[in-house]
Amino acid sequence: MDRAAAQELATQLYRALSSGDRDGLDRLLHPAFEGHATEGLPLGLGGDYHGPAEMRREFWGRIGRSYAAHAVPAEFALLDDGRLQVRGRYQGKARGGGDLDAEFVHVLSFSDDRISGLEQLTDSGRWAEALAPVDLETVKFTVTDGVGELRLNRPTARNALNQAAADELYEVALRCAARDDLRALLVTGEGRAFTVGGDISAFAEAEPGELPAVLRRMTSPYHEALRIFSGLEAPIVTAARGAVAGGGLGLLYVADIAFAAEGTKFATGFTGLGLSGDGANSWFLPRLVGLRRAFELYYEQRVLDADEAAEWGLVSHVVPDEALEDRAWAAVRKLADGPTRAYCEIRRLLRDSWSSTLSDQLLKETEAIVRSGATSDAGRAVEAFLAKKTPIFEGR
Amino acid sequence: MDRAAAQELATQLYRALSSGDRDGLDRLLHPAFEGHATEGLPLGLGGDYHGPAEMRREFWGRIGRSYAAHAVPAEFALLDDGRLQVRGRYQGKARGGGDLDAEFVHVLSFSDDRISGLEQLTDSGRWAEALAPVDLETVKFTVTDGVGELRLNRPTARNALNQAAADELYEVALRCAARDDLRALLVTGEGRAFTVGGDISAFAEAEPGELPAVLRRMTSPYHEALRIFSGLEAPIVTAARGAVAGGGLGLLYVADIAFAAEGTKFATGFTGLGLSGDGANSWFLPRLVGLRRAFELYYEQRVLDADEAAEWGLVSHVVPDEALEDRAWAAVRKLADGPTRAYCEIRRLLRDSWSSTLSDQLLKETEAIVRSGATSDAGRAVEAFLAKKTPIFEGR
Amino acid sequence: MDRAAAQELATQLYRALSSGDRDGLDRLLHPAFEGHATEGLPLGLGGDYHGPAEMRREFWGRIGRSYAAHAVPAEFALLDDGRLQVRGRYQGKARGGGDLDAEFVHVLSFSDDRISGLEQLTDSGRWAEALAPVDLETVKFTVTDGVGELRLNRPTARNALNQAAADELYEVALRCAARDDLRALLVTGEGRAFTVGGDISAFAEAEPGELPAVLRRMTSPYHEALRIFSGLEAPIVTAARGAVAGGGLGLLYVADIAFAAEGTKFATGFTGLGLSGDGANSWFLPRLVGLRRAFELYYEQRVLDADEAAEWGLVSHVVPDEALEDRAWAAVRKLADGPTRAYCEIRRLLRDSWSSTLSDQLLKETEAIVRSGATSDAGRAVEAFLAKKTPIFEGR
Repeated sequence: MDRAAAQELATQLYRALSSGDRDGLDRLLHPAFEGHATEGLPLGLGGDYHGPAEMRREFWGRIGRSYAAHAVPAEFALLDDGRLQVRGRYQGKARGGGDLDAEFVHVLSFSDDRISGLEQLTDSGRWAEALAPVDLETVKFTVTDGVGELRLNRPTARNALNQAAADELYEVALRCAARDDLRALLVTGEGRAFTVGGDISAFAEAEPGELPAVLRRMTSPYHEALRIFSGLEAPIVTAARGAVAGGGLGLLYVADIAFAAEGTKFATGFTGLGLSGDGANSWFLPRLVGLRRAFELYYEQRVLDADEAAEWGLVSHVVPDEALEDRAWAAVRKLADGPTRAYCEIRRLLRDSWSSTLSDQLLKETEAIVRSGATSDAGRAVEAFLAKKTPIFEGR
Repeated sequence: MDRAAAQELATQLYRALSSGDRDGLDRLLHPAFEGHATEGLPLGLGGDYHGPAEMRREFWGRIGRSYAAHAVPAEFALLDDGRLQVRGRYQGKARGGGDLDAEFVHVLSFSDDRISGLEQLTDSGRWAEALAPVDLETVKFTVTDGVGELRLNRPTARNALNQAAADELYEVALRCAARDDLRALLVTGEGRAFTVGGDISAFAEAEPGELPAVLRRMTSPYHEALRIFSGLEAPIVTAARGAVAGGGLGLLYVADIAFAAEGTKFATGFTGLGLSGDGANSWFLPRLVGLRRAFELYYEQRVLDADEAAEWGLVSHVVPDEALEDRAWAAVRKLADGPTRAYCEIRRLLRDSWSSTLSDQLLKETEAIVRSGATSDAGRAVEAFLAKKTPIFEGR
Repeated sequence: MDRAAAQELATQLYRALSSGDRDGLDRLLHPAFEGHATEGLPLGLGGDYHGPAEMRREFWGRIGRSYAAHAVPAEFALLDDGRLQVRGRYQGKARGGGDLDAEFVHVLSFSDDRISGLEQLTDSGRWAEALAPVDLETVKFTVTDGVGELRLNRPTARNALNQAAADELYEVALRCAARDDLRALLVTGEGRAFTVGGDISAFAEAEPGELPAVLRRMTSPYHEALRIFSGLEAPIVTAARGAVAGGGLGLLYVADIAFAAEGTKFATGFTGLGLSGDGANSWFLPRLVGLRRAFELYYEQRVLDADEAAEWGLVSHVVPDEALEDRAWAAVRKLADGPTRAYCEIRRLLRDSWSSTLSDQLLKETEAIVRSGATSDAGRAVEAFLAKKTPIFEGR
């Protein structure tokens, strides 16, 4: 292939990446495509990718979830082995983070008039820096003695979830997943209402016809946050007061123990807006309350009070409003002082249970109890039990 | 291939189709088989089918569910490109419908001594006419202002489900699925009992040894009806009084909102007849009431009263007998005046939830909320919300 | 291949089998490996195995679950077709059974320097004899008039499950599955407590670092027992008093009807020992009580009393302590006198329901009702129903 043809293919590649043109990518990439990304990239992005689909989904797709950035090529050079070297810069932002401006060199290989390889070298430090948090504004996140606290922080808007909140919840989820010193997480909200769900005034600001795009932009990072929280190794306690509504119910579902203050109201609210809903409601509600009641919450927009929510299994405990923080903190502390490796196994077993047959789950339980039996926590707890002492757990 | 050999293969094909000989079809069809059906065929049967399995399952299989008919070849002619043209007639009946007698031309291709292609041209109008209903006798079905009413109509037999009722429920399900003006459906029963389930006197009329065949003949269209109802785009309200038993419970399970009159009794009843049961009980009961109670209903033949049925999640609301119709009609009207496109997304999400992982369901929720956000119902509901007005929904 | 090379490969095979070296087996066996086991072997072990994975999992793996024995080769001879004949003895024990000492001849084939075939001839009578029970010590098992009784029998240890109990429960499960005259099974415990779960003193006796291996050794046969019980054709009634804890809850979950005496306590207890738990808790609890309450039982170690256990669906009925045996026996007798073929279909439908889509489950229900409709029990029950007589069931 001559330089002009190679450069034309490369240009089409950057254009397709920039516009998210999946069909274009499919045409450009050879079925035997191999990609290599700079080892040091954050979020586990470095390494090898086999085939166009893996490259698109696992590399470019995941970049797109964490960064809004483009590869801007500046200089093309044909190597004597027929490969094309492209120099340029990645420019844009990390989602919920800072600016990205990082040099790159791409070496493209070709086969059958398609791109069959891409070796990427870039300044991975810049990528990591960009992820480094900008100041969180709509949520607060602190970690003290191994216990994290995530606090929704738009009290005047009753902690309605706008685009910034969705991005920042995703950012906090990433931070939680990245820490290995986190032994438990408390999720709560500033002010009188835990959260009323999606911020409808944000929807209303959308240009005519833009509502679907606005919904996708907000829902994507929020759902990614819920996915990460539900797979977190540390147990989660949620403490809610006032109201938990719409997609905000997701922050209740990902908790292992959920406290509600007396007087808290629970509602889905979606159909009043002509929407089908988000926040993992459609996964958790049938499993927590059954199909019959799930439809009642969706279609008839039934509002539950705290006692009903406890009876239906949405929350674990109802406590007086003035005791909410104390009770939730006591619970999260107790979990943090518990056998957190065993908790992590239990979380995974219970969450995966739904897609396991009984036989498979029995095998998984065996492997999990063997792993938890190998922790020093278990060894010492057995000794303590027989000595009739209270065991001390260290999370290892 | 010469004419005799081609005609012999064609003859074997019609014989295998006629006798439902799946192994025979597998031997006759080339792995690269391509089928093309007349575009205008009803039930979405027209179009292309790739591979023998898809042709068998999606085309012939679906024909077999809606028609009891055979392709009767009359004339064979070898074309000069080696293909065989067959002329003949489809003869038989639509299930629950009228007679089918429609001309056809099939053009068969061959490869490696097998049939590698079938292009079908037939009089699709005749196929549609055949589907056109015979008079319904055991059920009534009407549609008024976008609201359908399906009424079981064998009051003297306590709406026991016999062969005609099973066939006619399937017919009504097909009609519901075919209408795009249906915004909600009410399912109810004439007389003092909603339904006592399968008609045992119909079982007893079977010749010795024929009970399994009778059960298969009745259960197949009834289950197909339940499958279609559960996937219907329009929400369903069921209103039951008196008794809901056996397979008839299925008409309760497919409802999104289920009303029961005070005094209604609920029972499975199957094991008293030495049968394992039908009506999707084994799918819904574990999900609605848990395995423990499901076994109690099956093995111990526990009879639930209306309040227990509500507490266990079989029904949504218990209402005084004299208020049953009014309450159910109010609910179905309200749904019909609601954001039916969003309801349809919710139905699908909740029904598919059980076979989704949390991650997959989050992705499906995102796509569904984006689709529902693109409806004019959603756009205007957001505006109405902020203007503190009641939204008006049009189902689009 | 010469004799020395063949013998060397064979020797490596016996060594890999003896040490459970899966990687070694993978290296030694040719991808096109074919195995043939002596037809008369018990537990359905006889017959052909295709491919290394099937041989390893279905033959050697299943042997390992039921026997602790090694193939000890004594004599090697190269046949003139290049195959190697090995003579030797299987030596060891059946798990929970007697000694195994059985002659064998293996004929090994080779291809590409790997083992491509193994034909086994052994004295299958010896294998069956070894399975024949040693005396059961920690459990009792009797069958009277088609009704089995499994009674946990370590009353002074509150029926804690030690290694012997795990092995013997597995042995009893195998015996139950092997009998075709068993129409129902009662599971109960001697003394004041049904079972407190795993025997913690047995854990404590483990050498330092041996706890994981001890857990695996105990959990494996116990889980295999639960798997067999849950798939048993005969219905199961469990009667519990005093305490049901930890992995012992599994003996409650596999029951179709579960009785608890007033005053019985229920607890998981695992996290107090730093363990993730066993006994199928992670499969049943989300399905019986929902994720919210499952976490409460695991993390907060909530102890349920009998009424709560009934309300949450862990048990079917709470009865006065002095009535426990009578009520449970009445229930198990009634099931044994019922349409046990239909019960068996229902068990399978309900257990498999969780991994079925609604469409699939409807098809399975149709097949099951057709099969149960073919039993003489069903035929006569339909007649009895119409004659207003009480049906008599014979389980066929």
